[in-house]
Amino acid sequence: MIQNGLLNDLQYQKITVKLILYLKIMCNKNLIKRSIFKEKISELKSKKFSFEINRIELPNGHEGEYGYIKHPGAALAVPITKDNKVIILRQYRFAVSRYLLEFPAGTLEIGETPINSIKREIQEEAGFSANKWDELGTLVPAPGYADEEIYLFLARDLSKLNYEVRGDLDEDIEVLILDPDKLDNLISSGDEILDAKTVTAWFRAKQFLDKL
Amino acid sequence: MIQNGLLNDLQYQKITVKLILYLKIMCNKNLIKRSIFKEKISELKSKKFSFEINRIELPNGHEGEYGYIKHPGAALAVPITKDNKVIILRQYRFAVSRYLLEFPAGTLEIGETPINSIKREIQEEAGFSANKWDELGTLVPAPGYADEEIYLFLARDLSKLNYEVRGDLDEDIEVLILDPDKLDNLISSGDEILDAKTVTAWFRAKQFLDKL
Repeated sequence: MIQNGLLNDLQYQKITVKLILYLKIMCNKNLIKRSIFKEKISELKSKKFSFEINRIELPNGHEGEYGYIKHPGAALAVPITKDNKVIILRQYRFAVSRYLLEFPAGTLEIGETPINSIKREIQEEAGFSANKWDELGTLVPAPGYADEEIYLFLARDLSKLNYEVRGDLDEDIEVLILDPDKLDNLISSGDEILDAKTVTAWFRAKQFLDKL
Repeated sequence: MIQNGLLNDLQYQKITVKLILYLKIMCNKNLIKRSIFKEKISELKSKKFSFEINRIELPNGHEGEYGYIKHPGAALAVPITKDNKVIILRQYRFAVSRYLLEFPAGTLEIGETPINSIKREIQEEAGFSANKWDELGTLVPAPGYADEEIYLFLARDLSKLNYEVRGDLDEDIEVLILDPDKLDNLISSGDEILDAKTVTAWFRAKQFLDKL
């Protein structure tokens, strides 16, 4: 491969590509860094996720026992109607003993992509389908004790379903259609306990729509 | 008490007060509604919280086994410097194997109020103290599987500490001071996995500051 101890153009090119890739990986080192798994201490399985306590070593060398929820991930939609209203749900959550304002969202099923999951959930939970989808990024709701990632989407060009899609039996949901200003006021009012994934998705949706 | 079958002014007043109270409770019925606890199935204790699986009956009558994290709650600060920059942390989170952008926050200790907790955390994590505090409401990060509530505050009139306050040994934190526009751009860039409590708190801080 090496002629007269020198590299040819193609070899230079290949090495440059590899170097750039290596630099990219090094730059990302600060963002993605695995802890070292030592041993599983205990585990409980719930319906859609499990809870594990593991002995792990953190990147800074500290070792300890940490408990967290292992979750398959979820997808969420901010649905905007043709006349620029926002569809949002009033939904019961047993863990906080409250009805919260939440965008349609759901846990990924095995082998399901986020976009296919949310196309199903928006029908089951809100009774709408959407023809125009845009990605709004990914959030982590509780990085202190859950590995869950929620994929955010903007759903537009909506059509109301003229049939009912059955969701989970234990879901207790009311569908609201709000002016964007009304949603902003509900968030600032102090009357609502804020659902963090919903406010984060709304922030991203507003950023996206403001740039159009 | 009743003269000639009629109520006097004071009695009318008392009944009116009770009626208003009753109406307030009825209006809130839709927001706060307890599930009925049936029995504890299993439990695991972690360092700062526990995980329980309980058999419960939901307000809509559906009964099932549900697992969730019982958490003491937390407090968070959006720190704004005197020259209107935002202080934010780059912090390692083992559960998601990443460094995230997060506002200073911490779990409430036993008997600690949210405001006292965050006054301690902002010193330990960011190395600043604040003289001006405003409430920005409360969020729930993961109402599907945690009862945690996070109390949000705006922290202004900051002073840099000239000594180091030791936080938890397992915390791995870098302090960043950003222009607000830079933070908005980081959130919209797609390069960051978004921390939902941080974006929600930033949304609320911007709402609050825009109204000044």
